[in-house]
Amino acid sequence: MPTPVNIQYAVEIDGEDIKRRLKGLFSATDETRELEMELDRKISDCIQEFLRDERASTEIELAALAESARQSRVPDLPSGVLEYLDDLAESMIRHSTHTASPRFIGHMTTALPYFVRPFGKLITALNQNPVKVETAKSFTAFERQALAMMHRLVYDDPDDFYDHHIQQKDSTLGIITTGGTAANLTALWCARNASLKAKDQFKGGASEGVSAALAAYGDRDAVIIGSSLIHYSFDKAADLLGIGSNNLIRVPTDENGRIDLDLLRRTILRCRKLNRRIIALIGVAGATDCGAIDPLVEMAEIAREHQIYFHVDAAWGGPLLFSRLHKDKLNGIEMAHSVTIDGHKQLYLPMGLGMVLLRDPQSAKVIERNAQYIIRSGSHDLGKRALEGSRPAMALYLHASLSIFGSRGYEILIDESMRMARFMADAIREKPEFQLLMEPQLNIVTYRYVPKPWREKIPALDESDNDAVSRFNIRLQKAQRREGKGFVSRTRLGRTRFGNSVVALRAVIANPLTTEHDIRTVLDDQIRLSALEGVSCE
Amino acid sequence: MPTPVNIQYAVEIDGEDIKRRLKGLFSATDETRELEMELDRKISDCIQEFLRDERASTEIELAALAESARQSRVPDLPSGVLEYLDDLAESMIRHSTHTASPRFIGHMTTALPYFVRPFGKLITALNQNPVKVETAKSFTAFERQALAMMHRLVYDDPDDFYDHHIQQKDSTLGIITTGGTAANLTALWCARNASLKAKDQFKGGASEGVSAALAAYGDRDAVIIGSSLIHYSFDKAADLLGIGSNNLIRVPTDENGRIDLDLLRRTILRCRKLNRRIIALIGVAGATDCGAIDPLVEMAEIAREHQIYFHVDAAWGGPLLFSRLHKDKLNGIEMAHSVTIDGHKQLYLPMGLGMVLLRDPQSAKVIERNAQYIIRSGSHDLGKRALEGSRPAMALYLHASLSIFGSRGYEILIDESMRMARFMADAIREKPEFQLLMEPQLNIVTYRYVPKPWREKIPALDESDNDAVSRFNIRLQKAQRREGKGFVSRTRLGRTRFGNSVVALRAVIANPLTTEHDIRTVLDDQIRLSALEGVSCE
Repeated sequence: MPTPVNIQYAVEIDGEDIKRRLKGLFSATDETRELEMELDRKISDCIQEFLRDERASTEIELAALAESARQSRVPDLPSGVLEYLDDLAESMIRHSTHTASPRFIGHMTTALPYFVRPFGKLITALNQNPVKVETAKSFTAFERQALAMMHRLVYDDPDDFYDHHIQQKDSTLGIITTGGTAANLTALWCARNASLKAKDQFKGGASEGVSAALAAYGDRDAVIIGSSLIHYSFDKAADLLGIGSNNLIRVPTDENGRIDLDLLRRTILRCRKLNRRIIALIGVAGATDCGAIDPLVEMAEIAREHQIYFHVDAAWGGPLLFSRLHKDKLNGIEMAHSVTIDGHKQLYLPMGLGMVLLRDPQSAKVIERNAQYIIRSGSHDLGKRALEGSRPAMALYLHASLSIFGSRGYEILIDESMRMARFMADAIREKPEFQLLMEPQLNIVTYRYVPKPWREKIPALDESDNDAVSRFNIRLQKAQRREGKGFVSRTRLGRTRFGNSVVALRAVIANPLTTEHDIRTVLDDQIRLSALEGVSCE
Repeated sequence: MPTPVNIQYAVEIDGEDIKRRLKGLFSATDETRELEMELDRKISDCIQEFLRDERASTEIELAALAESARQSRVPDLPSGVLEYLDDLAESMIRHSTHTASPRFIGHMTTALPYFVRPFGKLITALNQNPVKVETAKSFTAFERQALAMMHRLVYDDPDDFYDHHIQQKDSTLGIITTGGTAANLTALWCARNASLKAKDQFKGGASEGVSAALAAYGDRDAVIIGSSLIHYSFDKAADLLGIGSNNLIRVPTDENGRIDLDLLRRTILRCRKLNRRIIALIGVAGATDCGAIDPLVEMAEIAREHQIYFHVDAAWGGPLLFSRLHKDKLNGIEMAHSVTIDGHKQLYLPMGLGMVLLRDPQSAKVIERNAQYIIRSGSHDLGKRALEGSRPAMALYLHASLSIFGSRGYEILIDESMRMARFMADAIREKPEFQLLMEPQLNIVTYRYVPKPWREKIPALDESDNDAVSRFNIRLQKAQRREGKGFVSRTRLGRTRFGNSVVALRAVIANPLTTEHDIRTVLDDQIRLSALEGVSCE
């Protein structure tokens, strides 16, 4: 007998029947509850099966996956929830990337603590919308609290500062975003509007536009300055904000990926001379490419001297502040006007959680918007000062994890992944097949395999040698990805001690389950794969 | 005896102990599995208790909630997962807004089908990152499929169009965003970059900035045109994109909230005459305020005649396309260059899921970005053409719901909520205490309570009468919100048949569990509350 409230149709059924069954999908009856429990159990089983598999991915080709998702018409009739899950398990779940695998050490995806999975269900079920207090009554205060804790981690203001601002509706200690990209964009939005503020008869860039603002201020154009290693989200932000991505000035770095301070100073002076308005200076605390950290203290001083807005992108590196051993690496971050940190990176939380922290709780006023039907001025609504409107209560993950890990828990996670990265760098150094391309400053290791014919020429590899070695490493990375047992990513490093624009294998270590054995295995696999037909140079 | 892998500390413990316990939070052992199951059961119980409560909210004051979230320091030591949940249940979950309550009919939050809750856990557990195929191998194809289905719903191109584009890496049928705000921003970003494209020696606005682009094109400034009822996200977008929010031209509407076409034509001609570059024309399909739908066919024709990019914001109204009875209301939407639809509105999905659909699959090329370490040109990576970078696999909800509801399921949800809104409008018309402020075009009803002294003067209420009635309705809405049994929101309508700038009570009907009885109760409660001290005018 078919269950009365679930949707399970073999044949055409009439509208009244669909209607009754639809209501069953929404109702809070015992029957629906049982169906939900059954689905929940099956999904938990799928999850466990998925997580226990230690491979980085299955061997299936992308084209085959695409082939199973070619139907472009919304089905006319409803289908059963459990049937849908069965299909999904076979076609999608099974072939998902094992981002939590101990040997998936190639991207900034971390393993997750178990509690986030049930909390994911909770966030979905409560369906709070923090854009407005009326749709997120108690959560609003909790999001503010989580942001205040992160603000304190970065800026460490006195108690009375937090007492005053933490639940003060006119203060913005930080803004939750989907991720680092939106956080960086939000920071530069604040910077641009502050720089192009109203003066005399001019009403300000936010309302009059960038073109009118530059005219009012008598500037030729507007620029943003950072190193050549700043994240590509700044290109997007410069484009979006009407500044233009070519007006993002990328100052070269030294061999360790740190901005060249002399060149930076000269760049600023040249901009000033040419009437190019500097909207912001960007410091990097953990470059996506290679983990480099800019000299933040010096950059902050330069920014202060020239009265430039200073933003630090610590999307990856921010949580180092929990580590007594490593926090000094971020010295100077507390002088930044704003700081980006991602929850879904080294806070070990699920995708979709970034934040920008603001030193001055009033600085977000320049992006404030109100609307009669939704966020009224004078309200506690968090949507008043944010890039996004309606959004999920992702900050609940952050609130939970700050309590459940505590500072000392996060400290251990950071210290361990840093130690493991050093282990990997040492292992690479010991193997003649590999070259460590940069001394890792963080838990990101860049290296390459050097095939035999070139190994003997080290260190005298010329540009054409380097190109050949780069092509080899692309083939090697693809072969390992295809095999699916382990995974590192690849990038092209602009500057290294062995040459410029060379392809690097890139390992990102952020999984407490990754062991020294895993790292050795990933490297040994690369040595094995390098002899394969289609990879090797013979 | 304490469980060995969970974190439960009463007293200070040493680092090795924390380390071991931390690993337990991440490991896939049977022990961790049991702890996860226990947490999962407790969270399910919390959810059921929460969902069974039919109140719109508890009576607790915001200030009391804020008081419980004033601690601004990350705790030093870890705390137990279950202990944290106990605290959370008491302080946060219990006082969350019941957005799914049948009498919470005030905002665009809907009730949710049960299957999204376990799916929320699944999305969290898989932790795919669709920015890149390497971190979302199979999911990439599924997100493309869900977007193609939505594209087909709107544009209904022939089979061979979808066969070609659905899994074609160079085509973008749509872009998933956190919500309507980011979707509208993305659409206008495409529009602006297309309008300010490269020509002759000029490299285009995306790379050179808005100011240089206007100079290259010889335009005074850039504008965006829509009705006075467009969503406030367009103000944000105009600000963000460097156009300036004052250059968002809001053309007045008629009494039904539809843009005045004569004024629109005149506005366009005036802009052309003054060398003001028109970046886009925006049509509304379901105004947030009152549900009004612009005359889309006529607007599309005007846009075509003047070669202006036409964007339709159907964040709320888009799913009407599933209804054979109501889809004609959106005629003309298929002529838009881009269309915003929210999943977390009338697709009955959780917060955090919006999308913009693009008529021309090549039109997103103008916002494309690549980066060596993450999204390489020529790849299948979805992050190449998107506002956001790393983001969660929210489109899985969409993929699931399109199958599980089917077109006919969504049709019923739409038809029922439209019927229920008409029922509410009729009930309001029948009660002498109320005035229906606008004939509802969609499932949003705007009305107000008219206290006795003014009731007799209808329809001759002057401005000061209207102001007094507005103040009364603000008090009434707050009193009902405070009581917590039911909830409607309020807004201020610019233009109604009874006066301009009047405060309206605003009901949004999007809950299959809301009955005629619920609606009558919410209205009866308002009549009862209107006599309360502090609300009434006596």
